[in-house]
Amino acid sequence: MATIEQKLTELNLSLPPVSVPQAAYVPFCVSGNMVFLSGHIAKKNGQVWVGQLGLTMSTQEGQEAARLVAIDLMGTLNAACKSVGKTLEDVRKIVKVMSLVNSTSTFTEQHLVTNGCSELLAHVFGSRGEHARSAFGVIQLPLGSCVEIELIAELNP
Amino acid sequence: MATIEQKLTELNLSLPPVSVPQAAYVPFCVSGNMVFLSGHIAKKNGQVWVGQLGLTMSTQEGQEAARLVAIDLMGTLNAACKSVGKTLEDVRKIVKVMSLVNSTSTFTEQHLVTNGCSELLAHVFGSRGEHARSAFGVIQLPLGSCVEIELIAELNP
Amino acid sequence: MATIEQKLTELNLSLPPVSVPQAAYVPFCVSGNMVFLSGHIAKKNGQVWVGQLGLTMSTQEGQEAARLVAIDLMGTLNAACKSVGKTLEDVRKIVKVMSLVNSTSTFTEQHLVTNGCSELLAHVFGSRGEHARSAFGVIQLPLGSCVEIELIAELNP
Repeated sequence: MATIEQKLTELNLSLPPVSVPQAAYVPFCVSGNMVFLSGHIAKKNGQVWVGQLGLTMSTQEGQEAARLVAIDLMGTLNAACKSVGKTLEDVRKIVKVMSLVNSTSTFTEQHLVTNGCSELLAHVFGSRGEHARSAFGVIQLPLGSCVEIELIAELNP
Repeated sequence: MATIEQKLTELNLSLPPVSVPQAAYVPFCVSGNMVFLSGHIAKKNGQVWVGQLGLTMSTQEGQEAARLVAIDLMGTLNAACKSVGKTLEDVRKIVKVMSLVNSTSTFTEQHLVTNGCSELLAHVFGSRGEHARSAFGVIQLPLGSCVEIELIAELNP
Repeated sequence: MATIEQKLTELNLSLPPVSVPQAAYVPFCVSGNMVFLSGHIAKKNGQVWVGQLGLTMSTQEGQEAARLVAIDLMGTLNAACKSVGKTLEDVRKIVKVMSLVNSTSTFTEQHLVTNGCSELLAHVFGSRGEHARSAFGVIQLPLGSCVEIELIAELNP
């Protein structure tokens, strides 16, 4: 069975370091075996990916944004694991994802946008990556980001 | 004391099987004693219940939609219990509900809409059904659904 | 090291009692060592603080609203602790905050608004108050409130 690291290499992905929050909070919190990751906004080439689905972005572009958020989330999850002396191999389960899609009042494909994140997680973590999920449209996000996603994971004891 | 099954029969409710998600995720995730249910969108006669509160739906219709979501959530919770060799009788607590109400910018009765779900849970589970909750308006939901609700429950060990 | 009570006194803050929810739910739910607080809407002088960021309220006013919500959240957290024979000193960690900001489609400072809550929590609880967080814009909130915030905390065993 491929390790997470092998999977990431196979996908030609390298995980970023944790990005510093733009406000008064921390990127993750470990509580018992649970890891709570803060909402991560979409970035492209180091800049906030500004946009709104239904107005300035297509569903396909939204999926790519959600995929990029998933990479950042895995970077933060990696740091969270390290903070308690573990690695990504110790992730027992991606438990839940909440996905906020910057949407017009007529855009109804938030679930397809969010697949950009969910599919990458399932690809990297296999059956451990299959998660519960909520996805919905929001009127606006911090800094104008097109997508914001938060994540809960469970670590092996 | 009536069992959950007796309560459901008394209310003339039969729980549906888990519906297959329309995207890359799973309907529930069990982590330790906690069950996380995905956001469930409202359905009526097997179709997505499309609508927006403040525009095409009244508060009373929204409550009925939230009640139908609660029935689907209990169906999924039932399946989650079975997946770990338990039944709905082993639900120790409905812990938290998050309710997303498809709203215009002037509709302010998301809490009343969500009561359609909360009251049914309290009716079926008794004091074990009393839960913490957040309810708010969203600009749009997947497939145009009028309401989406996710739920966290705790099982007996 | 100052106790939470000393910190509150130093800030000239007194915690309110739990407010009665306006709908069919409870203000908090304790599950194991975790406390889940319901979404708390902003109040000013005992009335719902009605407003929308980007239209009728400035970012600075939003921060003040978020700060007042934090005080109410601490009041409820205090009651939750008492319900299991503990006090605020037994809060091991503020784990996660979810902040819903009533926003126009062009307001993008939900993170700055939410700092009004996060900074007070960090001030009162010190490093135990540093939390993961999601903040986003919503089209409308129950009773027209400008801000709604929910919170998850972990208690010492």
